Amino acid sequence: MATVEWDEGASGVRLIDQTRLPHEEAFVVCRTAAEVAAAIRDMVVRGAPAIGAAAAYGTALAAREGRLAEGAGLIRAARPTARDLFWAVERVEGAADPLEEAHRIARESIAACRELGRHGAALLPAGARIVTICNTGALATVDYGTGLGVIRAAHEAGKEPFVYAMETRPRAQGARLTTWELRRLGIPHRLIADGAAGLLLQRGMVDAAISGADRVCANGDVVNKVGTYPLALLCREHGVPFYVAAPCSTLDDATPDGAAVIIEERAAEEVTTFAPPGTDAWNPAFDVTPARLVTALITERGAMR
Amino acid sequence: MATVEWDEGASGVRLIDQTRLPHEEAFVVCRTAAEVAAAIRDMVVRGAPAIGAAAAYGTALAAREGRLAEGAGLIRAARPTARDLFWAVERVEGAADPLEEAHRIARESIAACRELGRHGAALLPAGARIVTICNTGALATVDYGTGLGVIRAAHEAGKEPFVYAMETRPRAQGARLTTWELRRLGIPHRLIADGAAGLLLQRGMVDAAISGADRVCANGDVVNKVGTYPLALLCREHGVPFYVAAPCSTLDDATPDGAAVIIEERAAEEVTTFAPPGTDAWNPAFDVTPARLVTALITERGAMR
Repeated sequence: MATVEWDEGASGVRLIDQTRLPHEEAFVVCRTAAEVAAAIRDMVVRGAPAIGAAAAYGTALAAREGRLAEGAGLIRAARPTARDLFWAVERVEGAADPLEEAHRIARESIAACRELGRHGAALLPAGARIVTICNTGALATVDYGTGLGVIRAAHEAGKEPFVYAMETRPRAQGARLTTWELRRLGIPHRLIADGAAGLLLQRGMVDAAISGADRVCANGDVVNKVGTYPLALLCREHGVPFYVAAPCSTLDDATPDGAAVIIEERAAEEVTTFAPPGTDAWNPAFDVTPARLVTALITERGAMR
Repeated sequence: MATVEWDEGASGVRLIDQTRLPHEEAFVVCRTAAEVAAAIRDMVVRGAPAIGAAAAYGTALAAREGRLAEGAGLIRAARPTARDLFWAVERVEGAADPLEEAHRIARESIAACRELGRHGAALLPAGARIVTICNTGALATVDYGTGLGVIRAAHEAGKEPFVYAMETRPRAQGARLTTWELRRLGIPHRLIADGAAGLLLQRGMVDAAISGADRVCANGDVVNKVGTYPLALLCREHGVPFYVAAPCSTLDDATPDGAAVIIEERAAEEVTTFAPPGTDAWNPAFDVTPARLVTALITERGAMR
């Protein structure tokens, strides 16, 4: 089961609806660029590489509709932060055969995840206890995963990793998606509240942290799910390596540093789950982890320290 | 409306049921020490000074039942971390008139909060933007509050503070209780996910952080709601003062440092709200903020740097 997959019969791109996981495994087929843009905006599909592949298929659908510029514009406007989205739209826009290019992007993405997983797993000791934030698994990619791809590769290599999955409020991708994937993979894990990462590090309960990335800037700053920066700071304080796993499609040489990235702010309602009606909230979706806090960036080309 | 109040007519201690806020304002009257112990354990009443006052009345009820040692034992076993609980039980156990001693503890607690609020407010500039964790307001005390007491005193002094309230998973006391109190007080605020504190500090959006404490050790280490330590670390990184507001009843000279404190671990179910059924979780309720990260400890006797 791929997270993003072309459905030849339906003549559209098929997405697992991540807003309904873990309680329901439902699929959505998008047959127009506008439908793909809505699926990205509403987080039916999320995770930078998965957004990239969906955007690629959306752009191919725009080309088929004969409204390439308009459709590509809709997709570009869906979410501002993940670099893969803009990279994928641009690749498909410039391709002679847009659908074939989208297929190529999807295939390359899976290969990149497997390769970066292999490189990352080599960094982990046997029995490593790893803390993760958000979801960086198959659901965040076309398949296999970035951060969870590393853990999965370690698991497949018999290294018996153990995962502490941060819940990752407000959308709880760690609680909803990471635990769901880890259980299917048979990788032992426990969920923690985001605030519990401090005591976890304080007590020496983890050997490494692994996050994904939505955009890696030219200077190495990492834009990722809000809460990543505090985790990286805790890792530095306690001498625990903080790894970022991302395919090269997430690397953005055109953006000098994190300060230059637009941080998406989402609806207050995502945060006010437990609050009295009418409560206002500030809901940035990402933060910036300065390059100096990143022990190594793991891509399909290897680990860069 | 006091959070913990003796109800002469009912001959018991009346508590606002904090598990039902903010959606329902319900009260519970405990007429035996066992009922008080259950209310503390189930977090009908929470917040170190509020737990202390409830424990005082519970011990007075035990004395009235003629089962002082047994009742005091039940209360001591209810929750392990908040220092006020043990301090209050001991005071009432040793008193000639247990109920009068419990009244005295409740009265002193309110006075201490007002006094520490005044001392703390003096540290805040006009228009201060303050980040808070958990609930440190009237609900965490007999009345007025510790951390929120400081903010309330600043508000009453015309300093126009603005509050960013961290949600504080897993029990969301920030989202449920702090926003509820701030609205009643007319103090402007926004809720944030716990992970968003990083970007908040990164962007220079706050002038101070104020937390409460469940136990302050002899060396100044602060045991408080899980997530406090990461917040304090962020404050140090960004040169923002991190204040701890607590009455002297929370100071524990008999415990040398944070490593000597029992950190309560609560049920996994508090954390698995959004997770697939059967997910395991690690749920420590507190963490330790090392003394070196605390800019000042604000008590009713003044601010100690």
